[in-house]
Amino acid sequence: MKLKRSSRLVDMTEYLLRHPHQVIPLSYFSERYESAKSSISEDLTIIKENFESQEIGQLQTQAGATGGVCYMPCMGCTEANQLLSDLQSQITQKERLLPGGYLYMTDILGKPDYINAIGRLIASVFIDKKLDAVMTMETKGIPLAYAVASQCSVPVVVVRRSSKVTEGSTVSINYISGSSKRIQTMVLPRRSLKEHARVLIVDDFMKAGGTMKGMMNLTKEFGAEVAGMAVFVEKNDERPKLVDQYVSLLKLSILEQEDTLTIENGNVAKWLSIPVSQISE
Amino acid sequence: MKLKRSSRLVDMTEYLLRHPHQVIPLSYFSERYESAKSSISEDLTIIKENFESQEIGQLQTQAGATGGVCYMPCMGCTEANQLLSDLQSQITQKERLLPGGYLYMTDILGKPDYINAIGRLIASVFIDKKLDAVMTMETKGIPLAYAVASQCSVPVVVVRRSSKVTEGSTVSINYISGSSKRIQTMVLPRRSLKEHARVLIVDDFMKAGGTMKGMMNLTKEFGAEVAGMAVFVEKNDERPKLVDQYVSLLKLSILEQEDTLTIENGNVAKWLSIPVSQISE
Repeated sequence: MKLKRSSRLVDMTEYLLRHPHQVIPLSYFSERYESAKSSISEDLTIIKENFESQEIGQLQTQAGATGGVCYMPCMGCTEANQLLSDLQSQITQKERLLPGGYLYMTDILGKPDYINAIGRLIASVFIDKKLDAVMTMETKGIPLAYAVASQCSVPVVVVRRSSKVTEGSTVSINYISGSSKRIQTMVLPRRSLKEHARVLIVDDFMKAGGTMKGMMNLTKEFGAEVAGMAVFVEKNDERPKLVDQYVSLLKLSILEQEDTLTIENGNVAKWLSIPVSQISE
Repeated sequence: MKLKRSSRLVDMTEYLLRHPHQVIPLSYFSERYESAKSSISEDLTIIKENFESQEIGQLQTQAGATGGVCYMPCMGCTEANQLLSDLQSQITQKERLLPGGYLYMTDILGKPDYINAIGRLIASVFIDKKLDAVMTMETKGIPLAYAVASQCSVPVVVVRRSSKVTEGSTVSINYISGSSKRIQTMVLPRRSLKEHARVLIVDDFMKAGGTMKGMMNLTKEFGAEVAGMAVFVEKNDERPKLVDQYVSLLKLSILEQEDTLTIENGNVAKWLSIPVSQISE
């Protein structure tokens, strides 16, 4: 189809947003629109300027015969700070506090707007980590893992507490829950992870970090590599965590005696000072 | 920020795609770009033409002081047929057949590209149903439910097999699994669904339909309404299903004696003959 610049811009923007972290040859667009590569390059310059000034992502172009364009989504400081402050005010509601020091977050984790935004923020932090997969533990981490994986165009692998008939042969390990000190099992289908795959581990909530540590060990059991770890909310605790080198979006402190909670930004804050245009360049 | 038309088109496309099924006042865009509403209207006409010719969705504009624009994602016949045929060839691999007549689909359900496309197709079918929530049963239906809900901008509610400490007070019902005839339990947090809410029930796989029927009953228990039901794969069976009025994308037949499977389009095919521009108009 022969399209004018204005229509090409709409169509290319939509196409790029739907194919993040995938290198698209310029010839794809020039054939699609029956336009010269020079026109396509000019279109891409307009899109790149817009994406970077709006801090919604980078557009990397590679020159040459095999050249192409790759959209890498991320989230700018302003939007990220706004998101974290929105989430803080959502979470700081006393009726969210449940017996045992747990927090009711099911409604927040049920909203695709929040989930997708959180996913985009986490994907920003790991934008240049060349991920092969995102791993999470059933159940509440699943939507977050998909939101991150969508932005990175990699598959999700879901670790389960027991093996299921629908998953074929599995690998299982035992691990010790950091907070309750009980021995638990985690299971992953044998076909789900390749050797040397670079895995980002994602979860919704971290108390002592036992589940995270278990997923690290499970990753190694497959001969794969932990490329990063991210949690939505970590619980502030006197005990040291069983893992380090993780990224947390929010940090929760609960004073059980007084039945109150406080929430502050997690260690992701230190990432937020880097302008989008400078990440991974 | 004052932007030229070309930059406005990129920015508006991105904004609309990220805010589906939300009415955005024209004044939002005219203030954002310091442009006259007449220019914004012209921009929207270009975007509308592109979205409709590419069959990626409708752009409905409402005139008047309270007027605005609403992007409703959908998937055209060509793309939908291509998707279903891709999925069929993925699934028709003999090594996917597991003992007990189950199918290994974990890898397909792990790929965000497929999940998001399937979500967009299901959202197309229910484009004019004014949904308030998408419901699914843990665990494998969760990514699909979020993919649909993202396209419709409504929250997801996840039904569980047992109550969790992190979910507060719950409502539980017993139901009879259609295939194994066993009594099972399903549980939903009390705060997760409002009365009269219009619920779309989504799942990855349906054998006899017992889980679907359970979710229908659970929805009614909350005084909410079933606005529709959709499954990714339904199993072809001699026995009649426990539910009707559902949409299925694919239909699987297994000949256990011969250890072979066949897969064909589900009843969604009848939806695919309606051009995008005619849906809900």
